[in-house]
Amino acid sequence: MAKLIPLGDQVVVKPMLEENRSIAGILLPDKDEKPQKGKVVAVGTGRKYENGTVGTMNVMEGDIVIFKKYAPDEFEIDGEKVLILGEDSILAKIEG
Amino acid sequence: MAKLIPLGDQVVVKPMLEENRSIAGILLPDKDEKPQKGKVVAVGTGRKYENGTVGTMNVMEGDIVIFKKYAPDEFEIDGEKVLILGEDSILAKIEG
Amino acid sequence: MAKLIPLGDQVVVKPMLEENRSIAGILLPDKDEKPQKGKVVAVGTGRKYENGTVGTMNVMEGDIVIFKKYAPDEFEIDGEKVLILGEDSILAKIEG
Amino acid sequence: MAKLIPLGDQVVVKPMLEENRSIAGILLPDKDEKPQKGKVVAVGTGRKYENGTVGTMNVMEGDIVIFKKYAPDEFEIDGEKVLILGEDSILAKIEG
Amino acid sequence: MAKLIPLGDQVVVKPMLEENRSIAGILLPDKDEKPQKGKVVAVGTGRKYENGTVGTMNVMEGDIVIFKKYAPDEFEIDGEKVLILGEDSILAKIEG
Amino acid sequence: MAKLIPLGDQVVVKPMLEENRSIAGILLPDKDEKPQKGKVVAVGTGRKYENGTVGTMNVMEGDIVIFKKYAPDEFEIDGEKVLILGEDSILAKIEG
Amino acid sequence: MAKLIPLGDQVVVKPMLEENRSIAGILLPDKDEKPQKGKVVAVGTGRKYENGTVGTMNVMEGDIVIFKKYAPDEFEIDGEKVLILGEDSILAKIEG
Repeated sequence: MAKLIPLGDQVVVKPMLEENRSIAGILLPDKDEKPQKGKVVAVGTGRKYENGTVGTMNVMEGDIVIFKKYAPDEFEIDGEKVLILGEDSILAKIEG
Repeated sequence: MAKLIPLGDQVVVKPMLEENRSIAGILLPDKDEKPQKGKVVAVGTGRKYENGTVGTMNVMEGDIVIFKKYAPDEFEIDGEKVLILGEDSILAKIEG
Repeated sequence: MAKLIPLGDQVVVKPMLEENRSIAGILLPDKDEKPQKGKVVAVGTGRKYENGTVGTMNVMEGDIVIFKKYAPDEFEIDGEKVLILGEDSILAKIEG
Repeated sequence: MAKLIPLGDQVVVKPMLEENRSIAGILLPDKDEKPQKGKVVAVGTGRKYENGTVGTMNVMEGDIVIFKKYAPDEFEIDGEKVLILGEDSILAKIEG
Repeated sequence: MAKLIPLGDQVVVKPMLEENRSIAGILLPDKDEKPQKGKVVAVGTGRKYENGTVGTMNVMEGDIVIFKKYAPDEFEIDGEKVLILGEDSILAKIEG
Repeated sequence: MAKLIPLGDQVVVKPMLEENRSIAGILLPDKDEKPQKGKVVAVGTGRKYENGTVGTMNVMEGDIVIFKKYAPDEFEIDGEKVLILGEDSILAKIEG
Repeated sequence: MAKLIPLGDQVVVKPMLEENRSIAGILLPDKDEKPQKGKVVAVGTGRKYENGTVGTMNVMEGDIVIFKKYAPDEFEIDGEKVLILGEDSILAKIEG
């Protein structure tokens, strides 16, 4: 499968749909189609700052994250939908 | 229950509804459904600045806070509504 | 009564209505309901800057202030309306 | 009369109306009611910068100034209309 | 005649109308009334920066300049129309 | 063929159309005409910062990239469509 | 002919129309009248920064450039249309 290598602080997320509500545990407030939860599948190397430093990333591959509703760009790779968004649009990680 | 770990200066708040006005003490000016009061249930590690420092957080778990009306993103976790918002959208803590 | 502890440079103001014009001395230009004058009842500890310093506040409890019309968020505490606004939305103090 | 003490770089201006055009010398381009000329009656102590310094003010009490049309907030003090605006909305002083 | 003393990087310009096209040489693309060409009649002392320095001005009295269409504020002094605009809205000087 | 030399952090991209979906592997979410995938054909020397330094570029000629939908300006060179966009509008590189 | 001396990082460009497509090589995507290609005829001395330094310019007289569609201000000098735009609105130079 084609591999996405995000630039800067971009993060690639595979959206998690909420078909089985009792398992996934997170529901969107209204049932529109914009996903707000997903699994991180690729992480950029960090935002580059003007002074030459590179910020560290706070999410890693495998993290389950929730994010701002209209932040991601949507793409389809090999028939699977993926989302790409800047790390500052990720609000929280979910554990457990 | 699934646990939310907020990133940066994000704060997870459980909204407090104003059903019993004589107890809660705080009322929204008009009775729309956007909550502006809640209990902090999780706090990020602080905003990361370009120079590498991390800001301290001024709210902690258990604080009752009021916040800007349209600031939070709303999610539902295990059937309970939670709000996530940046700490700079929190206006004040309530005591007593 | 519940106590509000403003964060950062936020200021809690009790709005002053202009029922008795000959006493209060300040009138709003048109008689809409947005107050622009009030008494400071609580003051934050100051805006925190990226470099770690904290700004000093220029208003204190008891000051009568006028402020930008649409700046405050309105809340009701124990049945009394209060306004919360950033100090940079306060235009002037009134004396005498 | 109540005294206004402007904060930061705010300036209190008493608007000058153009009833006698041959004396005042300055006319607004269209005859709407927004004044753009006035006399400075109070000056703030200067804008506070993040690094702790305070900017100097370039207008003083008594100056006749012209300013951006929609910049001022309008108030009425003891029955007289006053305008409050940031110094960076003042375009020029008028002499002679 | 009343004298205008511009603040900061403000520039006072007397608009040049294009009645005689073969002389003036500069025409506006459509014949609306917003002037985009004029003669500098007064220049501020320069923009003040946060670090205390003051920028130098790049136009002087007598310069013929062209500027962004909607940048100037328009005033009338002693019956003559003048424009006031920040130096960064001046695009070029015209010579010859 | 005319050669494009991008300035600053601009990148010239030849859009890749998704006629053969089983080969290209990336599909746009809806079939509008705005391309979001392409091959880098020219790269600027890097964004120049105020302090005189020049940022390094993270994409190079030949990279297959995906980018924000409305970011590029479209041009036609010698009958071929090309896109020009700032590097910060490139979200990820695709490999494999 | 009147000479234009651009200020700061402004650039004067003579628009190139695409009447003979087989020669010019660059076509606009739709045939509206906003030019996006032209020849540089004058270049400012560089953007002045707050710290007193002046940025270098990356285009020079004679360069053929393409630029953002709505960036330029249009003027007519001695009957010829010219465009003035900031250098950061120039996307690329064309060679060959």
